[in-house]
Amino acid sequence: MSSSTGNLFRLTTFGESHGLAIGGIIDGCPSGLKLDFKHIQKYLSYRRPGLSDVSSERLELDQVEFLSGVFEGVTLGTPIGFLIKNINAKSKDYNELKDLFRPSHADFAYEKKYGLRDYRGGGRSSARETANWVVGGAIALQILKTKNIFINSYVSSVGEISVDVDVKNTDLKLVYKNNVRCPIEKTAKKMEQLIKKCKIDGDTVGGQISTVVDGLPAGLGEPVFHKLQSAIAQSVMNINACKGVEFGLGFEYSKKRGSQANDSFILDQKNKIQTKTNNAGGILGGISNGQNLYFRTAFKPVSTIFKKQKTITKSLQQLSYIPSGRHDPCVVPRAVPIVDSLTAMIILDYYLLNKTTKISDL
Amino acid sequence: MSSSTGNLFRLTTFGESHGLAIGGIIDGCPSGLKLDFKHIQKYLSYRRPGLSDVSSERLELDQVEFLSGVFEGVTLGTPIGFLIKNINAKSKDYNELKDLFRPSHADFAYEKKYGLRDYRGGGRSSARETANWVVGGAIALQILKTKNIFINSYVSSVGEISVDVDVKNTDLKLVYKNNVRCPIEKTAKKMEQLIKKCKIDGDTVGGQISTVVDGLPAGLGEPVFHKLQSAIAQSVMNINACKGVEFGLGFEYSKKRGSQANDSFILDQKNKIQTKTNNAGGILGGISNGQNLYFRTAFKPVSTIFKKQKTITKSLQQLSYIPSGRHDPCVVPRAVPIVDSLTAMIILDYYLLNKTTKISDL
Amino acid sequence: MSSSTGNLFRLTTFGESHGLAIGGIIDGCPSGLKLDFKHIQKYLSYRRPGLSDVSSERLELDQVEFLSGVFEGVTLGTPIGFLIKNINAKSKDYNELKDLFRPSHADFAYEKKYGLRDYRGGGRSSARETANWVVGGAIALQILKTKNIFINSYVSSVGEISVDVDVKNTDLKLVYKNNVRCPIEKTAKKMEQLIKKCKIDGDTVGGQISTVVDGLPAGLGEPVFHKLQSAIAQSVMNINACKGVEFGLGFEYSKKRGSQANDSFILDQKNKIQTKTNNAGGILGGISNGQNLYFRTAFKPVSTIFKKQKTITKSLQQLSYIPSGRHDPCVVPRAVPIVDSLTAMIILDYYLLNKTTKISDL
Amino acid sequence: MSSSTGNLFRLTTFGESHGLAIGGIIDGCPSGLKLDFKHIQKYLSYRRPGLSDVSSERLELDQVEFLSGVFEGVTLGTPIGFLIKNINAKSKDYNELKDLFRPSHADFAYEKKYGLRDYRGGGRSSARETANWVVGGAIALQILKTKNIFINSYVSSVGEISVDVDVKNTDLKLVYKNNVRCPIEKTAKKMEQLIKKCKIDGDTVGGQISTVVDGLPAGLGEPVFHKLQSAIAQSVMNINACKGVEFGLGFEYSKKRGSQANDSFILDQKNKIQTKTNNAGGILGGISNGQNLYFRTAFKPVSTIFKKQKTITKSLQQLSYIPSGRHDPCVVPRAVPIVDSLTAMIILDYYLLNKTTKISDL
Repeated sequence: MSSSTGNLFRLTTFGESHGLAIGGIIDGCPSGLKLDFKHIQKYLSYRRPGLSDVSSERLELDQVEFLSGVFEGVTLGTPIGFLIKNINAKSKDYNELKDLFRPSHADFAYEKKYGLRDYRGGGRSSARETANWVVGGAIALQILKTKNIFINSYVSSVGEISVDVDVKNTDLKLVYKNNVRCPIEKTAKKMEQLIKKCKIDGDTVGGQISTVVDGLPAGLGEPVFHKLQSAIAQSVMNINACKGVEFGLGFEYSKKRGSQANDSFILDQKNKIQTKTNNAGGILGGISNGQNLYFRTAFKPVSTIFKKQKTITKSLQQLSYIPSGRHDPCVVPRAVPIVDSLTAMIILDYYLLNKTTKISDL
Repeated sequence: MSSSTGNLFRLTTFGESHGLAIGGIIDGCPSGLKLDFKHIQKYLSYRRPGLSDVSSERLELDQVEFLSGVFEGVTLGTPIGFLIKNINAKSKDYNELKDLFRPSHADFAYEKKYGLRDYRGGGRSSARETANWVVGGAIALQILKTKNIFINSYVSSVGEISVDVDVKNTDLKLVYKNNVRCPIEKTAKKMEQLIKKCKIDGDTVGGQISTVVDGLPAGLGEPVFHKLQSAIAQSVMNINACKGVEFGLGFEYSKKRGSQANDSFILDQKNKIQTKTNNAGGILGGISNGQNLYFRTAFKPVSTIFKKQKTITKSLQQLSYIPSGRHDPCVVPRAVPIVDSLTAMIILDYYLLNKTTKISDL
Repeated sequence: MSSSTGNLFRLTTFGESHGLAIGGIIDGCPSGLKLDFKHIQKYLSYRRPGLSDVSSERLELDQVEFLSGVFEGVTLGTPIGFLIKNINAKSKDYNELKDLFRPSHADFAYEKKYGLRDYRGGGRSSARETANWVVGGAIALQILKTKNIFINSYVSSVGEISVDVDVKNTDLKLVYKNNVRCPIEKTAKKMEQLIKKCKIDGDTVGGQISTVVDGLPAGLGEPVFHKLQSAIAQSVMNINACKGVEFGLGFEYSKKRGSQANDSFILDQKNKIQTKTNNAGGILGGISNGQNLYFRTAFKPVSTIFKKQKTITKSLQQLSYIPSGRHDPCVVPRAVPIVDSLTAMIILDYYLLNKTTKISDL
Repeated sequence: MSSSTGNLFRLTTFGESHGLAIGGIIDGCPSGLKLDFKHIQKYLSYRRPGLSDVSSERLELDQVEFLSGVFEGVTLGTPIGFLIKNINAKSKDYNELKDLFRPSHADFAYEKKYGLRDYRGGGRSSARETANWVVGGAIALQILKTKNIFINSYVSSVGEISVDVDVKNTDLKLVYKNNVRCPIEKTAKKMEQLIKKCKIDGDTVGGQISTVVDGLPAGLGEPVFHKLQSAIAQSVMNINACKGVEFGLGFEYSKKRGSQANDSFILDQKNKIQTKTNNAGGILGGISNGQNLYFRTAFKPVSTIFKKQKTITKSLQQLSYIPSGRHDPCVVPRAVPIVDSLTAMIILDYYLLNKTTKISDL
């Protein structure tokens, strides 16, 4: 089960960073969908390294090949098999890492769990895997779009620099207009400067991503053990370097009184029930309530820094090392389409699950 | 699947707050475990309302009855069915809520999802359900104890009052010595005062819980879609009022440089690999690394406040209401054994999953 | 996972034959169904022992108590917890079996698997468990009825006596009119005589059950690993004593030529595509094709015979024993509602799974 | 979930008969296994068409490419992605089938379920998919071999010709020595003659496969809903053309008395408990009992016959057609490695599931 996610819309993946290819199988994609292949490829390019000076210099084309499940451009309802070949894998860069456990990387934990590992570029633990997720996510986004459900993530902080404009006053269509994926141009510039500085310093920096789901119908979520926030948290916490997630007011809630935090129900002009505020971030009792869904994810700085660090080898030797290879000074911008993708797959899966809730739906 | 959690150690539950009973089935509990029934009942008492003036006055005995899966006090390996009867259910208190959607409660979302709901005490959305989780958790804790794995959660903040002592200098055996479940006596007193004040004010307050897993072996976690932090996040985000979770440095990570945040590997006196710091909270690449596991959960203030609030009914009438009934001014202390329980079930499940990872283990 | 079945409509059960109670949780039952409790109880009575001289004399009321998931007689969409108490459990009858492995019973295999067992009446391996299945099945049948899908099983052979009338010329409404559950009265009488003779002889006898699903829409089945026949086979093979299953012509197919066995497509008077014959039993490529579904199950004779048999004890003693206790001379008639129930749950589950197959269904 | 099978050892597949490739992902394969690639390729050759005059003339190399999960020839514990390219796919042969529903083929059912289909060679419903299963099965067989568990299937009947020698007196190493996969040379010859005659006649013929699992330890099986026979039945019933399965005496049991059918327990020379007979086929109460496992599967004749048949098109036209293309006169010999493979994956999966049954195993 390790490499599968989803219940009805289900992605299973494979691939090591420096193997022949990565890829996956999307099972449960409804039949009759005309796939927009350009959109998938565009989403992959959002995640792709090597495209700007705020990301790694490894240049991968990330050209996805679809091998099944699509006939004359339309989904068959059968599993969609796909491949992304590893072209620019410079394995030799990694020979020195064969026996060495890089600090804060997965090397040590993989060695402990499996007894061996593909040390080239982190193997299975590499963020290269997330390209697979974007393929699944892009298809999910296409289906959600037919239901007027839209998912928009953006970088809301890098290091100490954070967006100080409310999301409601933000044009989320601008997210992918710059390399840091922050729709507030002024803030984006500052973030970019900070990331470049980190690169020069041989250092890295963390950040946060904010996500908005717009047009989400009420009723999604499967209490008591598969609440909507649980499913999303489960999914996004799999992203490399993601260390926290919060919904609506999130951790701020813990400092509030109920009288400050509650969201009142009101009637809008069309006599539809809305909430006056949306501190809850669009979820009540684990079920979407028809308001926009809001959540934030926190990312640690990339562990590979170009500074001398002490570490230990498999044979218990202590040594200092400075990595070679290619790495991002800040992974957060590239994580934006990944958060979008995982969220899209969860929302679609829970949309499908909810189709058989009521006897009147059958 | 809504009401099941876990892969190999699996809990499935049922029950509305004011139905005849709540209960569950624990499937996959290994055979041959001598159950400590007193320990289970004690853990249930930690969660039970009505025991102190910082919690709800509903008095439930929460006496669990085991119906199967145990023979002469020992687990059979077959499913353990259990029941907790609802004794002190005052349904009449809730008649006024039949058509009314309480602000920030699940009423509205349940109505939207299912088309009807048991409005008495929140029905299935009530935190009464969490008593079932504690039964499963207490049994998981007993199994983990045989492997010297210990889980300790405690209240680390209530409103603005937070623990300012490092967990390493804290005696976690003191957690259940006071009603607010905070092991720092001085802070506990302040928290208690704040909660009491909220109660007098007819208000409620949020807070945070910190969790430590001690003795966790390296190797637990199932990348890439079922990393250890994902499984825990999924689980704890199901707790009523839980709105955020973070591991290790968590959201603080987003402000850090890699050079500040990385955990170096070192050799301890027994020549075992450890990390100098544990900013990662015991997880690398989604797999436990043999260090202590640390995470924090954030809770919103209880939504039921004894102040006049405006809301809407099913028939779209606007009205003001002040609830009657019995409610907690702060749910965080009672959530401590719940976090313990969910964490225990996840850790055990992933421990079992990890038993077949290596060919040499078979 | 051992004690759960189904994907979207999911039953999880517990209970030993001589414990306090058996019971289960039905998760994923759609909301808004007005339950017919009398129908459930009637179905349970079909399975119940002690009702005729062709079955065991253990008299159990099999009164099911619903504890949750139903409010004012209507399903809530939340899990339905239910209990059936063990009233007439004469555990003392079984003390002699504590260390003894009854021939062809599960005792030995349970002991090997779990290291211990509840030896009273077979514990978890007893067919008493199937009462839980009938509760789930009866509810599934009620939902299927609203879609004009009907499931009818009947005893088609006992020992050498078998029905020689084509099912098309059989009135399946008569199945429950006699104790052997065979709708051909003449054959039923012969079967009854054979079973009574076996009882007098202290012996038991096997038999077969035929099942017809009428009104099944085309499209149910989830290739390639969850074909409709696979799901049904999986489910019915769990019935105690069931040792074989075949669809349509089944094993007879193996002797046929393609030119004899193929089902031609024809147009009926309403210009709807039908098949001229239905050798396939209503399934093509693992998907229902709109014809009636036909399958047969084979049951071995009950293992408990009142004749002296040699066996072995846990401590490797060889001995002869004649059982006391109460047992059926032929379990096949009582298995009829069990086959109905399992089939109903599978058909409903696959009906629900099929609701999200096409993009045009969303 | 449609295209995944297994719990801990889990295969997910994709691929249409005439797409670019078929393939799959094996998740949960234990780490540290030195893969025998020749053995996998040999097993694939057993299933491969075009190799003899008793099978289809489509010549596929069925060369499997491993893309991940294996490093320096050893399994990593990460998912094993693999591909088999479709080389000899003559899609033009199938253009005439675009709108036509071939009798007893899956065309009609797929069209009904998904609303569209890849009509070339049956698309997803083609038996070409089973090559994927053999890849998974061959790896499972290699793991089971390290535990001295061996699986041997063979053709026990073709049409009216059946093996009349008890399996105990049969050398199962001879199975793959001839093209019909029958270890009794004399019978094999007759079967071969019958199949060749069918080919000349433009007809096809059904048959049966018998399977023996040798060395199976007691304790495998997960009652009450995942008994060992249920898991195997579920799996093998997915094989194209498989219409029945029976364990031990199977359908014969239905004619027996308990006194004839029971298997007595005896002590062997090493004082180990065995059964005198093995009518049960190695399973009691859904759990392996340490005896050999026996089961049989029944296959219908291949639906494509080279005789004129009437059928209907999508646009409801009635017409007669004789297929072109390449097809097997009898699929049963090629199904032998498929039954082996599915059985191996189930046995391995249940072996892994059983590793955490007892508290003393942890």
